[in-house]
Amino acid sequence: MEQKRKRAAWVNWALFFGTMILVFFLGLLASSITERKAENEYVYKPKVKLSEFEPRNELWGENFPREYQSYLQTSDTTFRSKYLGNAPADLLAEDPRLVVLWAGYGFSKDYMAPRGHFYAITDIRNTLRTGGPLKPDEGPMPNTCWSCKSPDVPRLMAEMGPAEFYKGKWASKGPEVVNYIGCADCHDPKTLDLRITRPALIEAFQASGRDISQATHQEMRSLVCAQCHVEYYFDKHRQDAPDVQYLTFPWRDGMTAETMLAYYNESGFADFTHALSKTPILKAQHPDYEIFLTGIHAERGLACADCHMPYVKEGGQKFTSHKMVSPLENIENTCQVCHRESEEELRGNVYERQEKVKEIRDKLEIQLVRAHVEAKAAWDAGVGEKEMEAVLQHIRNAQWYWDFTAASHGASFHSPVEMARVVGLGMDESQQARVILARLLTKSGIGEVPYPDITTKTKAQEFISLPMDKLRVEKAEFLKRIIPQWDQEATTREESWGIQYY
Amino acid sequence: MEQKRKRAAWVNWALFFGTMILVFFLGLLASSITERKAENEYVYKPKVKLSEFEPRNELWGENFPREYQSYLQTSDTTFRSKYLGNAPADLLAEDPRLVVLWAGYGFSKDYMAPRGHFYAITDIRNTLRTGGPLKPDEGPMPNTCWSCKSPDVPRLMAEMGPAEFYKGKWASKGPEVVNYIGCADCHDPKTLDLRITRPALIEAFQASGRDISQATHQEMRSLVCAQCHVEYYFDKHRQDAPDVQYLTFPWRDGMTAETMLAYYNESGFADFTHALSKTPILKAQHPDYEIFLTGIHAERGLACADCHMPYVKEGGQKFTSHKMVSPLENIENTCQVCHRESEEELRGNVYERQEKVKEIRDKLEIQLVRAHVEAKAAWDAGVGEKEMEAVLQHIRNAQWYWDFTAASHGASFHSPVEMARVVGLGMDESQQARVILARLLTKSGIGEVPYPDITTKTKAQEFISLPMDKLRVEKAEFLKRIIPQWDQEATTREESWGIQYY
Repeated sequence: MEQKRKRAAWVNWALFFGTMILVFFLGLLASSITERKAENEYVYKPKVKLSEFEPRNELWGENFPREYQSYLQTSDTTFRSKYLGNAPADLLAEDPRLVVLWAGYGFSKDYMAPRGHFYAITDIRNTLRTGGPLKPDEGPMPNTCWSCKSPDVPRLMAEMGPAEFYKGKWASKGPEVVNYIGCADCHDPKTLDLRITRPALIEAFQASGRDISQATHQEMRSLVCAQCHVEYYFDKHRQDAPDVQYLTFPWRDGMTAETMLAYYNESGFADFTHALSKTPILKAQHPDYEIFLTGIHAERGLACADCHMPYVKEGGQKFTSHKMVSPLENIENTCQVCHRESEEELRGNVYERQEKVKEIRDKLEIQLVRAHVEAKAAWDAGVGEKEMEAVLQHIRNAQWYWDFTAASHGASFHSPVEMARVVGLGMDESQQARVILARLLTKSGIGEVPYPDITTKTKAQEFISLPMDKLRVEKAEFLKRIIPQWDQEATTREESWGIQYY
Repeated sequence: MEQKRKRAAWVNWALFFGTMILVFFLGLLASSITERKAENEYVYKPKVKLSEFEPRNELWGENFPREYQSYLQTSDTTFRSKYLGNAPADLLAEDPRLVVLWAGYGFSKDYMAPRGHFYAITDIRNTLRTGGPLKPDEGPMPNTCWSCKSPDVPRLMAEMGPAEFYKGKWASKGPEVVNYIGCADCHDPKTLDLRITRPALIEAFQASGRDISQATHQEMRSLVCAQCHVEYYFDKHRQDAPDVQYLTFPWRDGMTAETMLAYYNESGFADFTHALSKTPILKAQHPDYEIFLTGIHAERGLACADCHMPYVKEGGQKFTSHKMVSPLENIENTCQVCHRESEEELRGNVYERQEKVKEIRDKLEIQLVRAHVEAKAAWDAGVGEKEMEAVLQHIRNAQWYWDFTAASHGASFHSPVEMARVVGLGMDESQQARVILARLLTKSGIGEVPYPDITTKTKAQEFISLPMDKLRVEKAEFLKRIIPQWDQEATTREESWGIQYY
């Protein structure tokens, strides 16, 4: 009996101390949770009052430091070009055929691989495509070119309306558009809700009979990106906006390569006339959103942000990374949320798709170079416009299909089968162009037209007679004389606004 | 106290009866398990003694009834062509361009959609491609054509060796090869282990420096299929097998469309000379295994059997379904083992890939039809062999790439990006052929060669001057007079073997 009682007492004490220890740790856990919540409140306590279209990203950063600091990392482009450091990759040097395909258009002068949002203003100032305007009404490009570069754009549009914003030469709004793409482009400063600030997207929805205000939150997580990462053109014939190159998405009849081509062919719109073949060419922009929609990740309900802005943790805080970059930089937080394979295998899967599509796209590129030089030879031999009509239509179609697959970021990952299909459509068009050309040339007594020596960017630019030295001198002069003026004017303006603290 | 004691007694009784009930159900479970094991032993108790190459599937069925009964269901092809009932779909009627592409070869006479293994013997007897031989040394095809049709093949090869088996006309082994593809083709009758019975696969491994005996079980679950579902050709120039069309896989340098084409181009092998263009054409067979290997399911480690022979349950028994068919017939046991999406969505994903690749493949087909008729026009206009050399090489390459993507079962699902890439390679080759042809034709004073009226199979067969009535009469005569003789001879032989029971 005595032993039994002793054992019972021992059990009781053990239970008592066990419970004590458990309760102690529960207390610690509760305290930790409370502290984190407190930290959370502290972190998200707004310090600065933000106006509706506050373009200064650093002020938003005072209120939302984690998101802002991750956004600042869009300046780190080492992932994109490990072998080139932070320097932008020169795509014309990598593939001089591009120079010939864009002969007669700015892209043949200068085409660097895209960098992070952080460089939006720097790069549009530096590119040879915007020329070297020394006065507000000089230069090759309109103000429409600023549309996707800065949160100063919604600020100005709110003041003057979109048509007035687009109006005039690019240089005329240089002092106004100075903050790189940022917070106000996608967020409401009060609620932080996602918002559409660009009228072109809203109008494109309207034109295709949809209402963007009905979009779900998950759709918005792609649509804020689709304000810019889309195919677009500058409509010069809007009756309600004379003398304006009005930013327009060609989505009225659909968002595939074919429906957009049909839309353009109906109106006869062209971005430029090709310098060699005289083809009215469509320059595809970056139809990232449209192509994404045709792929499996969109079909499974994903949004851009799911892979390009994954959840990350920092100091116990979970937040959305605002370092938009290739998800391959961060496979453990992106692909591996759903896919169980190793990083190496997943990366290999992406590259394999891209390389396969690139292989046939390169062939289409060569066919297109041939078509352009053969068309030039036909014009030179005196072939008439009527006989060339079908040729030019086929070249136009082929180059559109090619550019549609080449211009978009990550297209051959987002939708590899669709991209290969569109390359196939391009090859079919280029074949028709070249077969007719072969007949026309042979009739004119001309045999095989030699493929030009375009083994380097310099040779290719000489082949299409681009005055590169002159363009570079103009740009240097512009950067030296005009940019400091723009920056000074902007600083004065922003200082006059001041900063309002809570 | 009294109440407490009563409560304690109640608890004791409850525990007692609860335990009783639990033990009772445990007993039931144990009994059920034992019974199932007993059933299992009963089911897999061999009844019939099977010789090493027993070709009679029904005898294997005595020992392995579930597998055999599911295999018999390969006779049900309703899934493949819901709208056509059990009748085979006539692919030439569906796509009369095929008639022109295969002009000069048996496939232009007759090409039905593949049916289940159950019909292997029926269909090879019925097809116009094997002609109407009335004597053993008549007809267009060699015995090599039997290689994949029957477990009588390993039986005969064990007796006479492969070269002697391949030797002679197809009709000469008609009475010997009578059992449709079946158990002995892939299984050892003692252990039921998977085994390779076809020397061509073993030799192809050897030729590429590999040893098939080192294959893992998971590899074998594809390799037994790869005995037949591969690209192959009949080598007429083996020094160790004179006068034999020796079944050979062109895998020496690799298993891609390019490496196999390079292999064929090195030796100059051709399946036939095209009746219109005089091109030495390669007929791609069904490179299912090679194409599967380039796709994502192979990369993730799957085997053919994982999707085409899923585990199923019947009467509490789990076994491998031997009804090889499209996994789409049985999505819940195939795709959904890994993929969480609905049947409808998964089926849609498969069809979308297939339709996209088919769209550009159809364009390549039209280009090839044009190339063949343009080449004929060039020959007719007196263009010389030397000038046509490059044209024919490009047509040969283009048609190989086209057929590689068209001939395989399910290719555009197994590896959609690779298939689109290969279509692109074909388009590039067809473009080169047609551009040179346009020059040659224009020089000869010939303009655009009209596209033939091949809107129906009949018109297409008339266009290439096929004597269809004659071929049909010959076949009917053969089926009426010869087939009963073959069957009678086979019955007599198999009766003489008898059946040995345990």
